[in-house]
Amino acid sequence: MKRMHALALTMCLWSSMAAADPVAEVTSPDGRIRVQLDINPEGRLAYRVDRDGKPVLEDSRLGFQFRNAEALLRNLKLVKQATREVEADWELPWGERREVRNHYRELRVSIEETVRAQRHFDVVFRVYDDGFGFRYEMPRQPHATRVEIEDDLSEFAVARPATAWWIPAGEWNRYEYLYQKTPLSEVSQAHTPITVRTDDGLHLSFHEAALVDYAAMWLRRVDGQRLRAHLAPGGKEGASVVRMTPFSSPWRTVQISDRAGGLVESSLILNLNEPNKLGDVSWFKPAKYVGVWWSLHLDTESWATGSKHGATTANTRRYIDFAAQNGIRGVLVEGWNPGWDGMWFGNGWDFDFTRPVADFDLPALTAYAKTQAVHLVGHHETGCAVSHYETQLDASMAYAAEYGIDVVKTGYVCDAGQIERQDSKGGDITREWHDGQWMSNHHLRVVQAAAKHHVAVNPHEPIKDTGLRRTYPNWVSREGARGMEYNAWGQPPNPPDHEINLVFTRLLSGPMDYTPGIVSLTGRGGQEIPSTLARQLALYVTLYSPIQMVADLPEHYAKQPEAMKFIRDVPVDWDDTRVLNGEVGEFVTIARKARGSGTWAIGAMTDTQQRPVEFKLDFLTPGQRYRAEIYRDGEGADWRGDARFRFVREEKIVSADDTMAMTLAPGGGAAVLLVPLP
Amino acid sequence: MKRMHALALTMCLWSSMAAADPVAEVTSPDGRIRVQLDINPEGRLAYRVDRDGKPVLEDSRLGFQFRNAEALLRNLKLVKQATREVEADWELPWGERREVRNHYRELRVSIEETVRAQRHFDVVFRVYDDGFGFRYEMPRQPHATRVEIEDDLSEFAVARPATAWWIPAGEWNRYEYLYQKTPLSEVSQAHTPITVRTDDGLHLSFHEAALVDYAAMWLRRVDGQRLRAHLAPGGKEGASVVRMTPFSSPWRTVQISDRAGGLVESSLILNLNEPNKLGDVSWFKPAKYVGVWWSLHLDTESWATGSKHGATTANTRRYIDFAAQNGIRGVLVEGWNPGWDGMWFGNGWDFDFTRPVADFDLPALTAYAKTQAVHLVGHHETGCAVSHYETQLDASMAYAAEYGIDVVKTGYVCDAGQIERQDSKGGDITREWHDGQWMSNHHLRVVQAAAKHHVAVNPHEPIKDTGLRRTYPNWVSREGARGMEYNAWGQPPNPPDHEINLVFTRLLSGPMDYTPGIVSLTGRGGQEIPSTLARQLALYVTLYSPIQMVADLPEHYAKQPEAMKFIRDVPVDWDDTRVLNGEVGEFVTIARKARGSGTWAIGAMTDTQQRPVEFKLDFLTPGQRYRAEIYRDGEGADWRGDARFRFVREEKIVSADDTMAMTLAPGGGAAVLLVPLP
Repeated sequence: MKRMHALALTMCLWSSMAAADPVAEVTSPDGRIRVQLDINPEGRLAYRVDRDGKPVLEDSRLGFQFRNAEALLRNLKLVKQATREVEADWELPWGERREVRNHYRELRVSIEETVRAQRHFDVVFRVYDDGFGFRYEMPRQPHATRVEIEDDLSEFAVARPATAWWIPAGEWNRYEYLYQKTPLSEVSQAHTPITVRTDDGLHLSFHEAALVDYAAMWLRRVDGQRLRAHLAPGGKEGASVVRMTPFSSPWRTVQISDRAGGLVESSLILNLNEPNKLGDVSWFKPAKYVGVWWSLHLDTESWATGSKHGATTANTRRYIDFAAQNGIRGVLVEGWNPGWDGMWFGNGWDFDFTRPVADFDLPALTAYAKTQAVHLVGHHETGCAVSHYETQLDASMAYAAEYGIDVVKTGYVCDAGQIERQDSKGGDITREWHDGQWMSNHHLRVVQAAAKHHVAVNPHEPIKDTGLRRTYPNWVSREGARGMEYNAWGQPPNPPDHEINLVFTRLLSGPMDYTPGIVSLTGRGGQEIPSTLARQLALYVTLYSPIQMVADLPEHYAKQPEAMKFIRDVPVDWDDTRVLNGEVGEFVTIARKARGSGTWAIGAMTDTQQRPVEFKLDFLTPGQRYRAEIYRDGEGADWRGDARFRFVREEKIVSADDTMAMTLAPGGGAAVLLVPLP
Repeated sequence: MKRMHALALTMCLWSSMAAADPVAEVTSPDGRIRVQLDINPEGRLAYRVDRDGKPVLEDSRLGFQFRNAEALLRNLKLVKQATREVEADWELPWGERREVRNHYRELRVSIEETVRAQRHFDVVFRVYDDGFGFRYEMPRQPHATRVEIEDDLSEFAVARPATAWWIPAGEWNRYEYLYQKTPLSEVSQAHTPITVRTDDGLHLSFHEAALVDYAAMWLRRVDGQRLRAHLAPGGKEGASVVRMTPFSSPWRTVQISDRAGGLVESSLILNLNEPNKLGDVSWFKPAKYVGVWWSLHLDTESWATGSKHGATTANTRRYIDFAAQNGIRGVLVEGWNPGWDGMWFGNGWDFDFTRPVADFDLPALTAYAKTQAVHLVGHHETGCAVSHYETQLDASMAYAAEYGIDVVKTGYVCDAGQIERQDSKGGDITREWHDGQWMSNHHLRVVQAAAKHHVAVNPHEPIKDTGLRRTYPNWVSREGARGMEYNAWGQPPNPPDHEINLVFTRLLSGPMDYTPGIVSLTGRGGQEIPSTLARQLALYVTLYSPIQMVADLPEHYAKQPEAMKFIRDVPVDWDDTRVLNGEVGEFVTIARKARGSGTWAIGAMTDTQQRPVEFKLDFLTPGQRYRAEIYRDGEGADWRGDARFRFVREEKIVSADDTMAMTLAPGGGAAVLLVPLP
């Protein structure tokens, strides 16, 4: 090779990538999606994707940058390729559906450097009818043993003009933002999942699956509509990811659908995770829960002990009774343990998870709860002193289990968003990112420690969901977006389009503990919550979680007995899910079939526009009659002022031949139960 | 403080920043630019800027994120403030002007944490009539000794709709890109300087000054028109910047001008650097140079030894003669030293900078050059094995000086853009960024080692310029953008607007060794260079550098004697510079007054549009008559095809009362010398 040629290559632009004949390709089982791989004259590896012959992604490069080695980016050759087709359907132990179709075609290409170290790696594509994923597999090899990954250089260059819904990545506040809707060409750096709609109506969701022992992938737009992976920074390790070979990256995923709802119905993320490693998890019960929570956000009670303390024995007993009366299984109590007095945030090193504060008689309360078929829900707020929490991890899960606490909500609220890591007692404290490699491992340590004690986990301020509930089905829900508490004190509170955006963005990654059902529709200091009453009910169906909070105060539910009836009746575990209609950020109607009964539930919501919705009930069992219990916006309902309480409950008899029509008020919604008649 | 309040703060959004009464403010000496500081109820520090009462920057936060400590971002209070006004004009030993006006008002605010560690720091604003800069100063203090900076959180939120000219940061290819012109709202992550023009015509340039022992600041757009600092990554150190207190950050700078040309005329960056630390630097001679260079990019000669070797004794002697005949001081020879044979890039560990290859008789050549008043220009290509170069640094500069080589061109071409660092022999090699903290220190080590031997430095593939030539006047030029070599082999070559963009972006940071004067207008394999002949001459005036290459082959100049006359005559060191007209990316005309004579030079260039230009000569000495030697595009000249050679040289007598009018051809230009008549 001429040196001059080498110089020119070094200085040349990537734009010289030729759209040559592909070196490998694979299509989805239905043949509509085609992924092609290409290696250009510089030895750069790229892939491109079309669907029905129309380009979806243009040439998008693949590769790595390392801290302790040269980049794997050019001077690459394909040494081997293999394809296979797999059908391996499976069942979810709990979920938004029971049966998961898992049918894909796989292309594995083995890539080797043409120069020097001759390092090699595989890229594996799995192409489904509803999208695809790819990952890198780095075998054990002489010139790549301890690998320090500076960045993943994978690209996603969207081929048609498009709009994006996204939240910023690299910010102190993790995932708690309102979604921005901008031209894709105005995205800066976004978390995944990021949802994209091309101007001609194709819906895409970019995300990752099976984020294990790795840093989260952010997507940074480099120019035009070209997004590029950028790994969450490395904290103490320096490099974003440090691994010994062999290892695999998480799957980088792209869901593709003509309908917005198609993204919601996809099981691509779950399919790209490993099967259940925990075996029988019937000890986890999908359920609703109440708790000492909303009062804390209203600032009428406090986490700290003293006159306002919420987690007292008497107050908790009141919640246990309320739960029991309404057939609700769980009672969350925040502020039950030592560490909350004084200014706790950034001071999580004082938290103790294995003993209650003096005015909270945990043994007595759990004994009483047991008589009511109620279980306390644990709460482990770390204040981001994550190393401190880890020293108590097994003990705290054992302690919970001992008292019948089989779901634990964890928390990672910290100053300026940085996690505190201390590898040895008295050692230096390093700041880590919420979604860096160390935290990806931390969350799995928690989930595994909890599983040992048959405890389920529900982290708040978590790492994003990447479908690991398939592998660890006790990882049941999480926060990871702007939740209901912003309606207590947020400036602004969550506007009506936010919850619709959640369905088509955050919820694509997995269940969210949004904590719905604030029937008082009022936050701190009388602030109006931008929602109608009916919409609060719809949230139980539209925002999937196997644990759903009944988040308002018992005394507020007492004033809304009709709404409370729905909350009591709505299931939390499903055999099937259908998105009946919807557009990102505008409106959505979802129907779900309950497990263990023939009941269907429907939730619908709209943005600030009043909207008629009409849908066929053809998903119902033919010939079966159902009682439709309809909870909808009343005449003149509106998300502003007293009109947000205008509400109608009515019943009808319907069957699969019927069409249901309703009008959703501005900022409103509707919730329906379809109960089979005998 | 109530714990609940603390929780809410932690979860609240930055958007709650109130535009309250400022806690401190300062204006420019002329009163037109006003900078205000604000601390919101969360204790967040922000600044905003207006000019003539109209907002330029909206509330833009200030702060830091650390790897080994909590962020300094909220819970801040102002404990002290002080202002002063300074006038301290100074002289450049060489430059685009002699006298530099330095008049500013300074605001120093002392900021302290209200919580815990009570860390404190100062922010210092210096406001000039043509913009402002600010920096952080971190004193020695108990809770901040060894500081690991994860990121600088400074923002620049442009208040009016605007367009930006920018190149991407965080890419493997450093700074070598064509400029993108996009709405500011479509910038992703950019290097500085980035140039912005508001829709109502205000020109802004965002950059930094005095980048010493620090990582370069990139600007990442976080949303809308809000840019935020992002420090180049840390390589081996992990954190982007690791410093012991006390230390100061570089100055973050914003130039503001109604005219595009005002940005070029500004000395803000230089003013914010420390004064000359080298004392008398008259040993550096601004000069032109020729050399074994273009032939290498044409691939007619080679860096490597063998039949195509360019750096032979005989060939170099030919260049020495050519230089002597044309009164040119320097002869650059690339490929003179061992290490180029084999595939050199990524293999810089073989380079030797203290002995020539066998067919290059350095002692004889330098002895001969001396008889011709010619000096060889040294070449130290590191191939990015920077640690290896450092082991030879002093010896290589001593070696150069011994042979009368008083300018050295260094180079940092490497595979995938990453620098190789090895702290001890046989130790691990870490990849560093070209513009990370370690490289900012490396470049200064080179400049200081060179200064000791009275050698000037001209790095290619350098760290960006931040005005350090004021402090180290032997740092005379550098590359740091897409230069002329792209016209030899680039796909595409540099389009006509590129060189105009350079004037208004890259050149705002300092001199550039663009290597102009390719009068053959032809690259490798006959590729046409997108330029007229006259435009090649204009580049000597429009793209400032105190060392200017006469970059084409001697035999090509022999065919263009008229053009060669200008190249021979044009000065390289100036008393004054005026931008007569210009718009970013469209056209520009610059006049410069030579040092040591009354001669003025004018360069003009246009994009692909033919353009009449007309300007007054009122900058000339009144009453003095001048011979205008005009080199302009001929009738029908065009940057495409043979028409690019259409060229006219003509002379006129002019005075300060005259107006000069010319028509620039598409992709064309003009160069004028105005020589005082006796």
